[in-house]
Amino acid sequence: MAKYTIALDAMGGDLAPAVPVEAAVIAAREYDAAVALVGDEAAVSAELAKHDAGNLAVQVVPSEGVVSEDEAPARALLSKPRASIAVAVGMVKVGQAHAAISMGSTGGTMAAAVLALGMFPGLERPTLGGPFIGLAPETTIIDLGANVDCKPAQMLSFGALGASFERVYHGKESPRVGLLSVGSEDGKGNKQVQEAFPLFRASGLNFVGNVEGHEIFADKADVLVCDGFVGNVLLKYTEGLAAAAGRYLASRLGSDSPAVQAIAGLASAAEGGGGPLFGVNGVVIAGHGRSSAQSIARSVGLACFALDRNLIETMRDDLAQALVRAEVGSEQA
Amino acid sequence: MAKYTIALDAMGGDLAPAVPVEAAVIAAREYDAAVALVGDEAAVSAELAKHDAGNLAVQVVPSEGVVSEDEAPARALLSKPRASIAVAVGMVKVGQAHAAISMGSTGGTMAAAVLALGMFPGLERPTLGGPFIGLAPETTIIDLGANVDCKPAQMLSFGALGASFERVYHGKESPRVGLLSVGSEDGKGNKQVQEAFPLFRASGLNFVGNVEGHEIFADKADVLVCDGFVGNVLLKYTEGLAAAAGRYLASRLGSDSPAVQAIAGLASAAEGGGGPLFGVNGVVIAGHGRSSAQSIARSVGLACFALDRNLIETMRDDLAQALVRAEVGSEQA
Repeated sequence: MAKYTIALDAMGGDLAPAVPVEAAVIAAREYDAAVALVGDEAAVSAELAKHDAGNLAVQVVPSEGVVSEDEAPARALLSKPRASIAVAVGMVKVGQAHAAISMGSTGGTMAAAVLALGMFPGLERPTLGGPFIGLAPETTIIDLGANVDCKPAQMLSFGALGASFERVYHGKESPRVGLLSVGSEDGKGNKQVQEAFPLFRASGLNFVGNVEGHEIFADKADVLVCDGFVGNVLLKYTEGLAAAAGRYLASRLGSDSPAVQAIAGLASAAEGGGGPLFGVNGVVIAGHGRSSAQSIARSVGLACFALDRNLIETMRDDLAQALVRAEVGSEQA
Repeated sequence: MAKYTIALDAMGGDLAPAVPVEAAVIAAREYDAAVALVGDEAAVSAELAKHDAGNLAVQVVPSEGVVSEDEAPARALLSKPRASIAVAVGMVKVGQAHAAISMGSTGGTMAAAVLALGMFPGLERPTLGGPFIGLAPETTIIDLGANVDCKPAQMLSFGALGASFERVYHGKESPRVGLLSVGSEDGKGNKQVQEAFPLFRASGLNFVGNVEGHEIFADKADVLVCDGFVGNVLLKYTEGLAAAAGRYLASRLGSDSPAVQAIAGLASAAEGGGGPLFGVNGVVIAGHGRSSAQSIARSVGLACFALDRNLIETMRDDLAQALVRAEVGSEQA
């Protein structure tokens, strides 16, 4: 019997159910995991029948409906309580699965996870971060759009969670945490950054201070904290820029130029699969709607890794510690 | 006699005084303008002597000291009231020059311009905007870092000033003005954007609503408004990304690859000379510290153009109109 059972939202993402089903088959072969494909039973079973999966630990778990990108997540979950993402995280809640994965609406995944699993103490909302630029693959930028208008304590929580992830996932012993700002000197920035700064300093994190926009490529920090408004603009700007640069090079050099391939590779490296939600009480991975089967399968591997290393417990402890230290520090200041 | 006299800060920028002096010689040949080189008399005269400028309308105006990048602008101007930028904008104030140009500290140029010339009614600080991405050369992004923690009315002023500039400079009759945000639907964004939105709607500007990060390359707006924190992060991020992409392509394809040249051309197109300060009562152009002589000379041409077209008066009128309309609109709402 497989070590872990992973609930995979078979209806989420632009390429569902075909690509999630293919991913389940790959993952069940590659990892010590059984995959529960959550979705419309007929559609998912029909897709599954196209694969030679008879001996694999892949099952279908029925659900009704899906939360789509253009819906308000909370309202959609209210009207579709048996939607695929709700059933998937519900399996984690009742112990039928160890982790859940979806390439569907990120807002839907976050809302469903919060409702079913709850959040770490001290958090108001979960967050999402990750390395999104192929040119700075080792830098986790957080938050990428889940939280706008962040309070300074929220930004500190992003830093603590991101550092925890870097420590567990990339094996960095003391990840460097920076604040994205408009000047590298202490005290530079908008009010939000200026107020967050002393909290970071007192937090016990390996805080390296402010990091400017161009320094994202200079390996100054392992975790770069910003408000979700800024992170989301940067993320989407990068996607648009990569596409525009590709078109520009293709028009100048021809579309079969090696440079065009190189730029395209860089852009696709940026959307490789998914990352875990930071701050919910369980392993829940959200990914890009156009992820390939290979990269969704890698998310199953990531979930197994997170479970093996107790990622959630580590993050919860690290967050609590950083928040307490920052509070004590600011009372002493 | 030349139509205009332009005061050029000969001490400002990384390549001063040699490059500003060379720029003055080029500009005096190319434009109907006399250039007053403001700087250390001995150093500037020595540079000028290297050129065959005997018949050109180039003079040297002595100053003492310079405001450097790493100084707090206001304090520096207080301790060095005869600094080159102060003397240059002072010439505009007393009518000895029609416009001033500096490639030195942008903060210093703004502070000196505000002190000497004052601001448009309704503004607290001037702003700086411009197309900074070679891939979206027709989109003016504003503010690029002069103002962080903007109030909604300030953002409206950026939109009005940017639209005015687009109308005068690029000849666009009714420039499209957008708000940079994290979702394209009305109501998406952080508090700042959500509060600015109805002001823009009521302003009489050709407001196209929210524009997302990737849509910067989709020609949705001629003027894209954002808080200076966001604009500055984007500006510097783009500079860093262009450099990193160049290094990446060079390492993959060799440094003599046409792709590397193409990317480098794109990056340098982004730092082409200078742009006018928006919101001060006079033509004052601030530019990149590493601008070439050719591009500084083009700034002289830009100053002449702005004077010919009454850019300042037009901007002041347009701003007043937009602010009044937005106020009336929000009282009615």
